[in-house]
Amino acid sequence: MPLYGAIEAGGTKFVCAIGSNPEDLELYEFPTTAPQQTIDRAAAFFRGRPLAAIGIGSFGPIDPDPRSPTFGYITSTPKTAWRQFDFAGAIRKALNVNVAFETDVNAAAFGEYRWGAARGLHTFLYLTVGTGIGGGGMANGNLLHGKMHPEMGHIRVPIDASVDRFPGCCPYHGDCLEGLASGPAITGRWGAQGRDLPSDHPAWNLEAQYLALGLVNWICTLSPQRIVLGGGVMRRQELFPLIRSKVSTLLGGYLDPPEIVPPELGSRAGVLGAIALAEKVAV
Amino acid sequence: MPLYGAIEAGGTKFVCAIGSNPEDLELYEFPTTAPQQTIDRAAAFFRGRPLAAIGIGSFGPIDPDPRSPTFGYITSTPKTAWRQFDFAGAIRKALNVNVAFETDVNAAAFGEYRWGAARGLHTFLYLTVGTGIGGGGMANGNLLHGKMHPEMGHIRVPIDASVDRFPGCCPYHGDCLEGLASGPAITGRWGAQGRDLPSDHPAWNLEAQYLALGLVNWICTLSPQRIVLGGGVMRRQELFPLIRSKVSTLLGGYLDPPEIVPPELGSRAGVLGAIALAEKVAV
Repeated sequence: MPLYGAIEAGGTKFVCAIGSNPEDLELYEFPTTAPQQTIDRAAAFFRGRPLAAIGIGSFGPIDPDPRSPTFGYITSTPKTAWRQFDFAGAIRKALNVNVAFETDVNAAAFGEYRWGAARGLHTFLYLTVGTGIGGGGMANGNLLHGKMHPEMGHIRVPIDASVDRFPGCCPYHGDCLEGLASGPAITGRWGAQGRDLPSDHPAWNLEAQYLALGLVNWICTLSPQRIVLGGGVMRRQELFPLIRSKVSTLLGGYLDPPEIVPPELGSRAGVLGAIALAEKVAV
Repeated sequence: MPLYGAIEAGGTKFVCAIGSNPEDLELYEFPTTAPQQTIDRAAAFFRGRPLAAIGIGSFGPIDPDPRSPTFGYITSTPKTAWRQFDFAGAIRKALNVNVAFETDVNAAAFGEYRWGAARGLHTFLYLTVGTGIGGGGMANGNLLHGKMHPEMGHIRVPIDASVDRFPGCCPYHGDCLEGLASGPAITGRWGAQGRDLPSDHPAWNLEAQYLALGLVNWICTLSPQRIVLGGGVMRRQELFPLIRSKVSTLLGGYLDPPEIVPPELGSRAGVLGAIALAEKVAV
Protein backbone atom coordinates (compact mmCIF):
# COMPACT_ATOMS: atom_id res chain seq x y z
CA MET A 1 0.00 0.00 0.00
CA PRO A 2 1.50 3.41 -0.97
CA LEU A 3 2.41 5.84 1.81
CA TYR A 4 1.29 9.46 1.78
CA GLY A 5 2.35 12.53 3.69
CA ALA A 6 -0.07 15.00 5.26
CA ILE A 7 0.25 18.45 6.80
CA GLU A 8 -2.50 20.10 8.81
CA ALA A 9 -1.10 23.62 9.03
CA GLY A 10 -2.63 25.76 11.73
CA GLY A 11 -1.70 29.21 12.91
CA THR A 12 -0.36 27.84 16.20
CA LYS A 13 0.67 24.26 15.39
CA PHE A 14 1.56 21.95 12.52
CA VAL A 15 0.38 18.35 12.56
CA CYS A 16 2.28 16.17 10.09
CA ALA A 17 1.37 12.58 9.30
CA ILE A 18 2.60 9.64 7.27
CA GLY A 19 0.20 6.84 6.45
CA SER A 20 -2.45 5.57 4.11
CA ASN A 21 -5.67 5.37 6.13
CA PRO A 22 -7.16 6.02 9.61
CA GLU A 23 -5.76 2.75 11.01
CA ASP A 24 -2.20 3.40 9.90
CA LEU A 25 -1.03 6.86 10.84
CA GLU A 26 2.27 8.15 12.20
CA LEU A 27 1.95 11.66 13.65
CA TYR A 28 4.39 14.48 14.37
CA GLU A 29 3.22 17.76 15.90
CA PHE A 30 5.13 20.98 16.60
CA PRO A 31 4.47 24.73 17.06
CA THR A 32 4.15 26.98 14.00
CA THR A 33 7.09 29.42 13.84
CA ALA A 34 8.69 31.31 10.90
CA PRO A 35 7.80 29.86 7.49
CA GLN A 36 11.17 28.43 6.41
CA GLN A 37 11.95 27.03 9.86
CA THR A 38 8.53 25.41 10.02
CA ILE A 39 8.84 23.95 6.51
CA ASP A 40 12.33 22.61 7.34
CA ARG A 41 10.98 20.88 10.41
CA ALA A 42 8.12 19.28 8.48
CA ALA A 43 10.48 18.28 5.65
CA ALA A 44 12.88 16.63 8.11
CA PHE A 45 10.01 14.42 9.31
CA PHE A 46 9.07 13.36 5.77
CA ARG A 47 12.59 13.10 4.26
CA GLY A 48 13.78 9.64 3.29
CA ARG A 49 10.31 8.10 3.47
CA PRO A 50 8.88 6.73 0.22
CA LEU A 51 5.89 9.09 -0.10
CA ALA A 52 3.68 8.92 -3.21
CA ALA A 53 2.49 12.51 -2.57
CA ILE A 54 1.87 15.03 0.22
CA GLY A 55 -1.46 16.69 1.00
CA ILE A 56 -1.68 20.02 2.80
CA GLY A 57 -4.68 21.50 4.60
CA SER A 58 -3.65 25.03 5.47
CA PHE A 59 -4.80 28.03 7.47
CA GLY A 60 -5.56 30.92 5.16
CA PRO A 61 -6.69 32.69 3.17
CA ILE A 62 -4.93 30.60 0.53
CA ASP A 63 -4.93 30.17 -3.24
CA PRO A 64 -6.23 26.63 -3.90
CA ASP A 65 -6.73 27.08 -7.67
CA PRO A 66 -4.29 24.89 -9.67
CA ARG A 67 -4.91 27.17 -12.70
CA SER A 68 -3.59 30.22 -10.82
CA PRO A 69 0.03 31.46 -10.89
CA THR A 70 -0.07 31.74 -7.09
CA PHE A 71 -1.54 28.25 -6.55
CA GLY A 72 -0.29 26.87 -3.26
CA TYR A 73 0.35 30.27 -1.67
CA ILE A 74 -0.91 31.53 1.63
CA THR A 75 -2.22 34.95 0.61
CA SER A 76 -3.47 37.76 2.87
CA THR A 77 -3.20 36.11 6.30
CA PRO A 78 -2.91 38.33 9.40
CA LYS A 79 0.26 36.28 10.21
CA THR A 80 2.53 38.66 8.29
CA ALA A 81 5.58 36.36 7.98
CA TRP A 82 3.43 33.86 6.09
CA ARG A 83 1.83 36.38 3.75
CA GLN A 84 2.41 35.54 0.04
CA PHE A 85 4.40 32.46 1.10
CA ASP A 86 4.58 29.68 -1.51
CA PHE A 87 3.72 26.88 0.91
CA ALA A 88 3.02 24.11 -1.61
CA GLY A 89 6.08 25.13 -3.66
CA ALA A 90 8.37 25.03 -0.62
CA ILE A 91 7.27 21.49 0.26
CA ARG A 92 7.49 20.36 -3.37
CA LYS A 93 11.04 21.72 -3.68
CA ALA A 94 12.21 20.33 -0.34
CA LEU A 95 10.92 16.80 -0.99
CA ASN A 96 10.45 16.52 -4.76
CA VAL A 97 6.92 15.07 -4.56
CA ASN A 98 3.50 16.00 -5.89
CA VAL A 99 1.62 18.24 -3.49
CA ALA A 100 -2.14 18.77 -3.00
CA PHE A 101 -3.16 22.06 -1.37
CA GLU A 102 -6.45 22.95 0.30
CA THR A 103 -7.95 25.01 3.09
CA ASP A 104 -7.82 23.38 6.51
CA VAL A 105 -11.61 23.14 6.57
CA ASN A 106 -11.96 21.63 3.08
CA ALA A 107 -9.22 19.13 3.98
CA ALA A 108 -11.18 18.06 7.07
CA ALA A 109 -14.35 17.93 4.96
CA PHE A 110 -12.53 15.70 2.48
CA GLY A 111 -11.39 13.44 5.33
CA GLU A 112 -15.00 12.99 6.47
CA TYR A 113 -15.94 12.32 2.83
CA ARG A 114 -13.24 9.67 2.39
CA TRP A 115 -13.55 7.86 5.72
CA GLY A 116 -16.19 9.50 7.91
CA ALA A 117 -19.62 11.07 8.19
CA ALA A 118 -19.84 12.29 4.57
CA ARG A 119 -19.00 9.00 2.81
CA GLY A 120 -20.91 8.45 -0.43
CA LEU A 121 -22.34 11.97 -0.65
CA HIS A 122 -21.92 14.43 -3.52
CA THR A 123 -23.14 17.61 -1.80
CA PHE A 124 -22.49 18.26 1.88
CA LEU A 125 -21.44 20.91 4.33
CA TYR A 126 -18.71 20.53 6.97
CA LEU A 127 -18.68 23.20 9.63
CA THR A 128 -16.21 23.62 12.45
CA VAL A 129 -17.19 25.77 15.42
CA GLY A 130 -14.28 26.57 17.72
CA THR A 131 -11.82 29.47 17.94
CA GLY A 132 -13.44 30.59 14.71
CA ILE A 133 -16.21 29.24 12.51
CA GLY A 134 -15.08 27.67 9.25
CA GLY A 135 -17.04 25.91 6.56
CA GLY A 136 -16.17 23.65 3.67
CA GLY A 137 -17.66 20.73 1.83
CA MET A 138 -18.67 19.64 -1.63
CA ALA A 139 -21.13 20.62 -4.33
CA ASN A 140 -21.74 17.98 -7.00
CA GLY A 141 -18.67 16.00 -5.94
CA ASN A 142 -16.25 18.95 -6.01
CA LEU A 143 -14.76 20.65 -2.96
CA LEU A 144 -16.16 24.17 -2.65
CA HIS A 145 -13.96 26.69 -4.43
CA GLY A 146 -14.67 29.74 -6.50
CA LYS A 147 -12.89 33.04 -6.87
CA MET A 148 -11.06 31.77 -3.77
CA HIS A 149 -12.61 29.54 -1.10
CA PRO A 150 -15.52 29.73 1.34
CA GLU A 151 -15.25 31.94 4.40
CA MET A 152 -18.56 30.74 5.77
CA GLY A 153 -18.07 31.97 9.31
CA HIS A 154 -18.49 35.54 8.13
CA ILE A 155 -22.12 35.38 6.96
CA ARG A 156 -24.63 37.70 8.66
CA VAL A 157 -27.67 36.34 10.50
CA PRO A 158 -30.58 38.04 12.29
CA ILE A 159 -29.97 39.15 15.87
CA ASP A 160 -32.78 39.66 18.36
CA ALA A 161 -31.53 42.64 20.37
CA SER A 162 -34.14 41.94 23.07
CA VAL A 163 -32.35 38.64 23.76
CA ASP A 164 -28.69 39.32 22.92
CA ARG A 165 -26.85 42.64 23.34
CA PHE A 166 -23.36 41.16 22.78
CA PRO A 167 -21.80 43.23 19.95
CA GLY A 168 -19.88 40.28 18.49
CA CYS A 169 -16.12 39.69 18.51
CA CYS A 170 -15.07 39.40 14.85
CA PRO A 171 -12.30 41.98 14.27
CA TYR A 172 -13.57 42.52 10.70
CA HIS A 173 -17.35 42.43 11.06
CA GLY A 174 -18.26 42.45 14.73
CA ASP A 175 -21.49 40.52 14.67
CA CYS A 176 -21.07 38.10 11.76
CA LEU A 177 -21.82 34.46 12.66
CA GLU A 178 -18.24 33.86 13.85
CA GLY A 179 -18.43 37.05 15.92
CA LEU A 180 -21.64 35.81 17.56
CA ALA A 181 -21.20 32.05 17.91
CA SER A 182 -17.50 31.05 17.98
CA GLY A 183 -15.90 29.87 21.22
CA PRO A 184 -14.46 33.35 21.97
CA ALA A 185 -17.95 34.85 21.39
CA ILE A 186 -19.40 32.53 24.05
CA THR A 187 -16.62 33.53 26.45
CA GLY A 188 -17.03 37.22 25.63
CA ARG A 189 -20.80 37.20 26.06
CA TRP A 190 -21.09 35.14 29.24
CA GLY A 191 -17.78 35.86 30.95
CA ALA A 192 -16.92 32.17 31.13
CA GLN A 193 -15.66 29.56 28.71
CA GLY A 194 -18.29 27.30 27.16
CA ARG A 195 -16.76 24.24 28.80
CA ASP A 196 -17.52 25.78 32.22
CA LEU A 197 -21.20 26.54 31.48
CA PRO A 198 -23.79 23.97 32.62
CA SER A 199 -26.09 22.24 30.12
CA ASP A 200 -29.11 24.28 31.21
CA HIS A 201 -27.33 27.63 30.78
CA PRO A 202 -29.13 29.99 28.32
CA ALA A 203 -25.87 30.18 26.36
CA TRP A 204 -26.68 26.91 24.60
CA ASN A 205 -30.12 27.89 23.39
CA LEU A 206 -28.71 31.12 21.93
CA GLU A 207 -25.73 29.27 20.43
CA ALA A 208 -28.09 26.76 18.78
CA GLN A 209 -30.24 29.61 17.44
CA TYR A 210 -27.31 31.37 15.73
CA LEU A 211 -25.91 28.15 14.31
CA ALA A 212 -29.39 27.11 13.09
CA LEU A 213 -29.77 30.47 11.31
CA GLY A 214 -26.45 29.89 9.57
CA LEU A 215 -27.36 26.31 8.63
CA VAL A 216 -30.71 27.40 7.17
CA ASN A 217 -28.91 29.90 4.94
CA TRP A 218 -26.52 27.20 3.71
CA ILE A 219 -29.38 24.73 3.23
CA CYS A 220 -31.22 27.26 1.04
CA THR A 221 -28.02 27.95 -0.92
CA LEU A 222 -26.27 24.58 -1.33
CA SER A 223 -29.06 22.06 -0.61
CA PRO A 224 -26.62 19.74 1.21
CA GLN A 225 -27.49 16.05 1.60
CA ARG A 226 -25.97 16.13 5.09
CA ILE A 227 -24.36 18.64 7.44
CA VAL A 228 -21.40 17.63 9.62
CA LEU A 229 -20.82 19.88 12.66
CA GLY A 230 -17.44 19.65 14.38
CA GLY A 231 -15.00 21.76 16.37
CA GLY A 232 -14.54 22.38 20.07
CA VAL A 233 -17.91 24.04 20.69
CA MET A 234 -19.78 21.13 19.08
CA ARG A 235 -18.30 18.71 21.63
CA ARG A 236 -21.34 19.85 23.66
CA GLN A 237 -23.55 17.05 22.30
CA GLU A 238 -26.67 18.70 23.73
CA LEU A 239 -26.36 21.30 20.95
CA PHE A 240 -27.32 18.77 18.25
CA PRO A 241 -31.00 18.24 19.19
CA LEU A 242 -31.42 21.96 19.86
CA ILE A 243 -29.96 22.86 16.46
CA ARG A 244 -32.01 20.21 14.60
CA SER A 245 -35.22 21.46 16.18
CA LYS A 246 -34.48 25.12 15.41
CA VAL A 247 -33.50 24.36 11.80
CA SER A 248 -36.85 22.60 11.27
CA THR A 249 -38.74 25.49 12.81
CA LEU A 250 -36.87 28.06 10.71
CA LEU A 251 -37.42 26.12 7.46
CA GLY A 252 -41.15 26.25 8.24
CA GLY A 253 -42.07 23.16 6.24
CA TYR A 254 -40.82 24.75 3.01
CA LEU A 255 -37.84 22.38 2.71
CA ASP A 256 -37.00 19.08 4.40
CA PRO A 257 -33.94 19.60 6.60
CA PRO A 258 -30.91 17.42 5.86
CA GLU A 259 -29.35 15.20 8.51
CA ILE A 260 -27.20 17.15 10.97
CA VAL A 261 -24.52 14.91 12.46
CA PRO A 262 -21.21 15.00 14.37
CA PRO A 263 -17.95 14.18 12.56
CA GLU A 264 -16.65 10.60 12.74
CA LEU A 265 -12.93 11.39 12.53
CA GLY A 266 -12.79 13.90 15.38
CA SER A 267 -9.55 15.87 15.63
CA ARG A 268 -7.92 13.63 12.99
CA ALA A 269 -10.21 14.80 10.17
CA GLY A 270 -7.67 17.41 9.00
CA VAL A 271 -4.62 15.15 8.60
CA LEU A 272 -6.73 12.28 7.27
CA GLY A 273 -8.24 14.63 4.71
CA ALA A 274 -4.75 15.72 3.72
CA ILE A 275 -3.79 12.04 3.27
CA ALA A 276 -6.89 11.58 1.08
CA LEU A 277 -5.98 14.71 -0.94
CA ALA A 278 -2.48 13.28 -1.45
CA GLU A 279 -4.01 10.04 -2.79
CA LYS A 280 -5.68 12.07 -5.52
CA VAL A 281 -2.51 13.74 -6.80
CA ALA A 282 -0.17 10.75 -6.43
CA VAL A 283 1.40 9.68 -9.71
CA MET B 1 -26.77 23.71 -37.41
CA PRO B 2 -28.96 21.45 -35.22
CA LEU B 3 -32.24 22.86 -33.88
CA TYR B 4 -33.20 22.60 -30.23
CA GLY B 5 -36.45 23.06 -28.37
CA ALA B 6 -36.78 25.04 -25.13
CA ILE B 7 -39.49 25.45 -22.52
CA GLU B 8 -39.43 28.13 -19.86
CA ALA B 9 -42.24 26.89 -17.64
CA GLY B 10 -43.63 29.49 -15.27
CA GLY B 11 -46.57 29.30 -12.93
CA THR B 12 -48.55 31.74 -15.08
CA LYS B 13 -47.11 31.31 -18.59
CA PHE B 14 -45.10 28.94 -20.75
CA VAL B 15 -42.53 30.31 -23.18
CA CYS B 16 -41.49 27.75 -25.81
CA ALA B 17 -38.69 28.28 -28.29
CA ILE B 18 -37.06 26.60 -31.25
CA GLY B 19 -33.58 27.64 -32.28
CA SER B 20 -29.89 27.21 -31.75
CA ASN B 21 -28.60 30.54 -30.42
CA PRO B 22 -29.69 34.06 -29.40
CA GLU B 23 -29.79 35.28 -33.01
CA ASP B 24 -32.02 32.47 -34.25
CA LEU B 25 -35.03 31.95 -32.01
CA GLU B 26 -38.68 31.26 -32.78
CA LEU B 27 -40.91 31.89 -29.74
CA TYR B 28 -44.39 30.73 -28.72
CA GLU B 29 -45.97 31.90 -25.46
CA PHE B 30 -49.25 30.91 -23.80
CA PRO B 31 -50.85 30.82 -20.31
CA THR B 32 -50.15 27.89 -17.99
CA THR B 33 -53.31 25.81 -17.45
CA ALA B 34 -53.82 22.15 -16.44
CA PRO B 35 -50.71 20.00 -16.90
CA GLN B 36 -51.82 17.75 -19.79
CA GLN B 37 -53.47 20.60 -21.68
CA THR B 38 -50.36 22.73 -21.26
CA ILE B 39 -48.04 19.92 -22.37
CA ASP B 40 -50.27 19.22 -25.41
CA ARG B 41 -50.05 22.86 -26.41
CA ALA B 42 -46.27 22.93 -26.11
CA ALA B 43 -45.97 19.61 -27.95
CA ALA B 44 -48.13 20.89 -30.81
CA PHE B 45 -45.66 23.76 -31.28
CA PHE B 46 -42.65 21.41 -31.39
CA ARG B 47 -44.20 18.50 -33.34
CA GLY B 48 -42.86 17.84 -36.79
CA ARG B 49 -39.75 20.00 -36.27
CA PRO B 50 -36.37 18.21 -36.39
CA LEU B 51 -35.27 18.88 -32.79
CA ALA B 52 -32.04 17.33 -31.51
CA ALA B 53 -33.30 17.68 -27.90
CA ILE B 54 -35.54 19.81 -25.69
CA GLY B 55 -34.42 21.73 -22.60
CA ILE B 56 -36.84 22.65 -19.82
CA GLY B 57 -36.40 25.33 -17.15
CA SER B 58 -39.30 24.81 -14.78
CA PHE B 59 -41.01 26.43 -11.82
CA GLY B 60 -40.67 24.22 -8.78
CA PRO B 61 -39.72 22.70 -6.50
CA ILE B 62 -38.56 20.06 -8.97
CA ASP B 63 -36.39 16.94 -8.99
CA PRO B 64 -33.40 17.76 -11.24
CA ASP B 65 -31.32 14.68 -10.26
CA PRO B 66 -30.90 12.27 -13.23
CA ARG B 67 -30.03 9.52 -10.71
CA SER B 68 -33.40 9.83 -9.00
CA PRO B 69 -36.51 7.76 -9.85
CA THR B 70 -38.56 10.98 -9.90
CA PHE B 71 -36.10 12.90 -12.12
CA GLY B 72 -38.01 15.38 -14.23
CA TYR B 73 -40.96 15.71 -11.83
CA ILE B 74 -42.40 18.86 -10.39
CA THR B 75 -42.62 17.90 -6.72
CA SER B 76 -44.29 19.82 -3.88
CA THR B 77 -45.48 22.95 -5.72
CA PRO B 78 -48.37 24.98 -4.28
CA LYS B 79 -50.00 24.57 -7.75
CA THR B 80 -51.77 21.34 -6.76
CA ALA B 81 -52.62 20.10 -10.28
CA TRP B 82 -48.88 20.06 -11.10
CA ARG B 83 -47.78 18.30 -7.92
CA GLN B 84 -45.85 15.05 -8.62
CA PHE B 85 -46.29 15.65 -12.36
CA ASP B 86 -43.71 13.93 -14.57
CA PHE B 87 -42.99 17.00 -16.69
CA ALA B 88 -39.84 15.78 -18.46
CA GLY B 89 -41.42 12.35 -19.03
CA ALA B 90 -44.56 13.85 -20.57
CA ILE B 91 -42.50 15.88 -23.06
CA ARG B 92 -40.21 12.94 -23.81
CA LYS B 93 -43.21 10.66 -24.50
CA ALA B 94 -45.06 13.24 -26.58
CA LEU B 95 -42.11 14.05 -28.82
CA ASN B 96 -39.69 11.14 -28.51
CA VAL B 97 -36.60 13.31 -27.89
CA ASN B 98 -33.96 13.64 -25.18
CA VAL B 99 -35.01 16.10 -22.50
CA ALA B 100 -32.88 18.22 -20.12
CA PHE B 101 -34.63 19.39 -16.94
CA GLU B 102 -33.62 22.21 -14.61
CA THR B 103 -35.04 24.86 -12.33
CA ASP B 104 -36.13 28.05 -14.08
CA VAL B 105 -33.37 29.98 -12.29
CA ASN B 106 -30.58 27.52 -13.08
CA ALA B 107 -31.74 27.48 -16.72
CA ALA B 108 -31.46 31.28 -16.86
CA ALA B 109 -28.07 31.06 -15.12
CA PHE B 110 -26.96 28.54 -17.75
CA GLY B 111 -28.14 30.89 -20.51
CA GLU B 112 -26.00 33.69 -19.09
CA TYR B 113 -23.10 31.20 -18.85
CA ARG B 114 -23.47 30.09 -22.49
CA TRP B 115 -24.10 33.46 -24.15
CA GLY B 116 -24.23 36.24 -21.55
CA ALA B 117 -22.73 37.81 -18.45
CA ALA B 118 -21.28 34.58 -16.99
CA ARG B 119 -19.34 33.39 -20.05
CA GLY B 120 -16.06 31.67 -19.23
CA LEU B 121 -16.66 31.42 -15.49
CA HIS B 122 -16.67 28.28 -13.36
CA THR B 123 -18.27 29.65 -10.20
CA PHE B 124 -20.94 32.32 -10.31
CA LEU B 125 -24.27 33.32 -8.82
CA TYR B 126 -27.35 34.32 -10.82
CA LEU B 127 -30.08 35.99 -8.80
CA THR B 128 -33.49 37.10 -10.00
CA VAL B 129 -35.39 39.64 -7.91
CA GLY B 130 -39.02 39.99 -8.95
CA THR B 131 -42.28 38.39 -7.82
CA GLY B 132 -40.00 36.18 -5.74
CA ILE B 133 -36.25 35.95 -5.22
CA GLY B 134 -34.56 32.97 -6.85
CA GLY B 135 -30.93 32.02 -7.09
CA GLY B 136 -28.94 29.63 -9.21
CA GLY B 137 -25.51 29.41 -10.73
CA MET B 138 -22.46 27.19 -10.83
CA ALA B 139 -19.82 25.88 -8.48
CA ASN B 140 -16.69 24.49 -10.17
CA GLY B 141 -18.43 24.32 -13.54
CA ASN B 142 -21.53 22.45 -12.31
CA LEU B 143 -24.99 23.97 -11.91
CA LEU B 144 -25.89 24.16 -8.21
CA HIS B 145 -27.74 21.03 -7.07
CA GLY B 146 -27.64 18.99 -3.94
CA LYS B 147 -30.30 17.10 -2.04
CA MET B 148 -32.57 19.10 -4.33
CA HIS B 149 -31.81 22.60 -5.67
CA PRO B 150 -31.14 26.03 -4.19
CA GLU B 151 -34.02 28.04 -2.72
CA MET B 152 -31.82 31.05 -2.14
CA GLY B 153 -34.62 33.56 -1.66
CA HIS B 154 -35.44 32.00 1.69
CA ILE B 155 -32.21 32.80 3.55
CA ARG B 156 -32.48 34.97 6.69
CA VAL B 157 -30.65 38.30 6.96
CA PRO B 158 -30.38 40.87 9.76
CA ILE B 159 -33.22 43.37 10.09
CA ASP B 160 -32.81 46.74 11.76
CA ALA B 161 -36.19 47.21 13.45
CA SER B 162 -35.44 50.90 14.00
CA VAL B 163 -35.44 51.33 10.20
CA ASP B 164 -37.89 48.69 8.94
CA ARG B 165 -41.01 47.44 10.74
CA PHE B 166 -42.45 45.60 7.71
CA PRO B 167 -43.07 42.00 8.89
CA GLY B 168 -42.20 40.44 5.52
CA CYS B 169 -44.56 38.77 3.05
CA CYS B 170 -43.24 35.22 2.58
CA PRO B 171 -46.12 32.84 3.37
CA TYR B 172 -43.65 30.31 4.81
CA HIS B 173 -41.12 32.48 6.67
CA GLY B 174 -42.44 36.03 6.83
CA ASP B 175 -39.19 37.94 6.90
CA CYS B 176 -36.80 35.79 4.87
CA LEU B 177 -34.96 37.70 2.11
CA GLU B 178 -37.80 37.09 -0.37
CA GLY B 179 -40.29 38.25 2.24
CA LEU B 180 -38.29 41.47 2.73
CA ALA B 181 -36.95 42.35 -0.71
CA SER B 182 -39.11 40.83 -3.50
CA GLY B 183 -41.34 43.06 -5.63
CA PRO B 184 -44.43 42.26 -3.50
CA ALA B 185 -42.42 43.14 -0.35
CA ILE B 186 -41.67 46.59 -1.80
CA THR B 187 -45.35 47.05 -2.61
CA GLY B 188 -46.44 45.78 0.80
CA ARG B 189 -44.01 47.98 2.72
CA TRP B 190 -44.46 51.26 0.84
CA GLY B 191 -48.03 50.94 -0.44
CA ALA B 192 -46.94 51.46 -4.03
CA GLN B 193 -45.27 49.37 -6.68
CA GLY B 194 -41.52 49.80 -7.08
CA ARG B 195 -41.94 51.10 -10.62
CA ASP B 196 -43.96 54.04 -9.21
CA LEU B 197 -41.38 55.03 -6.57
CA PRO B 198 -38.89 57.80 -7.49
CA SER B 199 -35.14 57.16 -7.53
CA ASP B 200 -34.60 59.13 -4.33
CA HIS B 201 -37.26 57.20 -2.37
CA PRO B 202 -35.86 55.47 0.77
CA ALA B 203 -37.20 52.18 -0.60
CA TRP B 204 -34.12 51.78 -2.78
CA ASN B 205 -31.57 52.23 -0.04
CA LEU B 206 -33.36 49.61 2.08
CA GLU B 207 -33.76 47.28 -0.92
CA ALA B 208 -30.03 47.56 -1.66
CA GLN B 209 -29.21 46.87 2.00
CA TYR B 210 -31.22 43.62 2.10
CA LEU B 211 -29.87 42.41 -1.23
CA ALA B 212 -26.30 43.29 -0.18
CA LEU B 213 -26.74 41.26 3.02
CA GLY B 214 -27.88 38.29 0.93
CA LEU B 215 -25.00 38.70 -1.52
CA VAL B 216 -22.43 38.86 1.28
CA ASN B 217 -23.74 35.56 2.64
CA TRP B 218 -23.45 33.92 -0.77
CA ILE B 219 -20.00 35.44 -1.34
CA CYS B 220 -18.80 33.94 1.97
CA THR B 221 -20.33 30.58 1.04
CA LEU B 222 -19.71 30.08 -2.71
CA SER B 223 -16.92 32.58 -3.44
CA PRO B 224 -18.43 33.44 -6.83
CA GLN B 225 -16.22 34.97 -9.53
CA ARG B 226 -19.14 37.19 -10.57
CA ILE B 227 -22.73 37.87 -9.50
CA VAL B 228 -25.45 38.50 -12.09
CA LEU B 229 -28.53 40.30 -10.76
CA GLY B 230 -31.68 40.17 -12.88
CA GLY B 231 -35.46 40.23 -12.54
CA GLY B 232 -38.04 43.02 -12.59
CA VAL B 233 -36.80 44.82 -9.47
CA MET B 234 -33.23 44.98 -10.81
CA ARG B 235 -34.42 46.94 -13.86
CA ARG B 236 -33.92 49.90 -11.48
CA GLN B 237 -30.30 50.40 -12.57
CA GLU B 238 -29.67 52.78 -9.67
CA LEU B 239 -29.70 49.73 -7.39
CA PHE B 240 -26.39 48.44 -8.78
CA PRO B 241 -24.03 51.14 -7.40
CA LEU B 242 -25.92 51.12 -4.07
CA ILE B 243 -25.59 47.33 -3.78
CA ARG B 244 -21.90 47.32 -4.79
CA SER B 245 -21.09 49.94 -2.19
CA LYS B 246 -22.99 48.16 0.59
CA VAL B 247 -21.42 44.79 -0.25
CA SER B 248 -17.94 46.33 0.06
CA THR B 249 -18.83 47.95 3.37
CA LEU B 250 -20.28 44.71 4.75
CA LEU B 251 -17.26 42.64 3.67
CA GLY B 252 -15.13 45.09 5.66
CA GLY B 253 -11.93 44.47 3.70
CA TYR B 254 -11.88 40.80 4.68
CA LEU B 255 -12.65 39.60 1.16
CA ASP B 256 -12.52 41.32 -2.24
CA PRO B 257 -16.06 41.60 -3.59
CA PRO B 258 -16.72 39.95 -6.96
CA GLU B 259 -18.13 41.93 -9.89
CA ILE B 260 -21.87 42.55 -9.57
CA VAL B 261 -23.43 43.01 -13.01
CA PRO B 262 -26.79 42.98 -14.83
CA PRO B 263 -27.70 40.05 -17.08
CA GLU B 264 -26.95 40.33 -20.80
CA LEU B 265 -29.81 38.18 -22.08
CA GLY B 266 -32.63 40.01 -20.28
CA SER B 267 -35.98 38.24 -20.34
CA ARG B 268 -34.66 35.68 -22.85
CA ALA B 269 -32.16 34.15 -20.40
CA GLY B 270 -34.59 31.37 -19.43
CA VAL B 271 -35.41 30.04 -22.90
CA LEU B 272 -31.84 30.53 -24.11
CA GLY B 273 -30.61 28.60 -21.10
CA ALA B 274 -33.06 25.83 -21.93
CA ILE B 275 -31.68 25.77 -25.51
CA ALA B 276 -28.15 25.49 -24.06
CA LEU B 277 -29.27 22.68 -21.74
CA ALA B 278 -30.75 20.87 -24.73
CA GLU B 279 -27.40 21.14 -26.56
CA LYS B 280 -25.81 19.21 -23.70
CA VAL B 281 -28.20 16.23 -23.86
CA ALA B 282 -28.55 16.05 -27.65
CA VAL B 283 -27.44 12.73 -29.12
